[in-house]
Amino acid sequence: MANKPKRKIVLASGVFDLLHLGHVRFLEEAKRNGGKNAKLIVVIARDSTVEKAKGKKPIMSEDQRRALVESLKVVDSAVLGYVNFDIGDVIDKVKPDVIALGYDQTDMETAVLTYITKNKLPVQIVRIGKFGENTLDSSSKIKQKIIEKLS
Amino acid sequence: MANKPKRKIVLASGVFDLLHLGHVRFLEEAKRNGGKNAKLIVVIARDSTVEKAKGKKPIMSEDQRRALVESLKVVDSAVLGYVNFDIGDVIDKVKPDVIALGYDQTDMETAVLTYITKNKLPVQIVRIGKFGENTLDSSSKIKQKIIEKLS
Repeated sequence: MANKPKRKIVLASGVFDLLHLGHVRFLEEAKRNGGKNAKLIVVIARDSTVEKAKGKKPIMSEDQRRALVESLKVVDSAVLGYVNFDIGDVIDKVKPDVIALGYDQTDMETAVLTYITKNKLPVQIVRIGKFGENTLDSSSKIKQKIIEKLS
Repeated sequence: MANKPKRKIVLASGVFDLLHLGHVRFLEEAKRNGGKNAKLIVVIARDSTVEKAKGKKPIMSEDQRRALVESLKVVDSAVLGYVNFDIGDVIDKVKPDVIALGYDQTDMETAVLTYITKNKLPVQIVRIGKFGENTLDSSSKIKQKIIEKLS
């Protein structure tokens, strides 16, 4: 019998506030990059991390965002990020074969590249494109539409 | 060998605009009522049906709402409702063993009870409670929080 091929671990991260189809498609494409039987682990940004980066907390709490992402078919495990977030700590813990980055995760991309280059880690980085220009595929667009409907 | 027990079909329905944890917990409890190996079919309200009932369309389009609900682990199949929505037509097509109703689906409850009584159908009706008072477990509350954050 042939050896069972190693199950690749794909790591994705994000805020996932106001879950929408763009998030799901991002996660599906991320997982596909790990090949058959890949395991998708998603790190959910803490409320405090989002507040530090964007000046305000997300609409949905970190616990709700984590539980909702974990309830998706495509996701094997969703975990909260560290309070003092450092992508290096996450990489050391998860030991991913693939790290998937969304179209708007440029700061994360820099941090990931710096860390894996410095530590000579054999991690594949994949960039996932944006989905459908005309759909509500970002939390900001969803908020905008809710506000427009008020008037 | 024992006969394979019949896989019960559970039917749930709703708008599922701005998907949140309350929706997921509702669907999970709905499915549990069908016992082990139950199949959960979710009927997603059409944009036109929502507009007729509430005077305005949902934030997310019917196709997005359907695809997002179907991407949940707990859901076996998510289908759009009929354009001229009639729960009787849905019951005839899906042939559910169990129909799960949310805490706010009182009109639906009346329609379902009328139809199954009139047609003497052996369908079990279950009412699912509301989840966590202090969490964002309704689309209205989520919209409210988005609006509050503007000021």
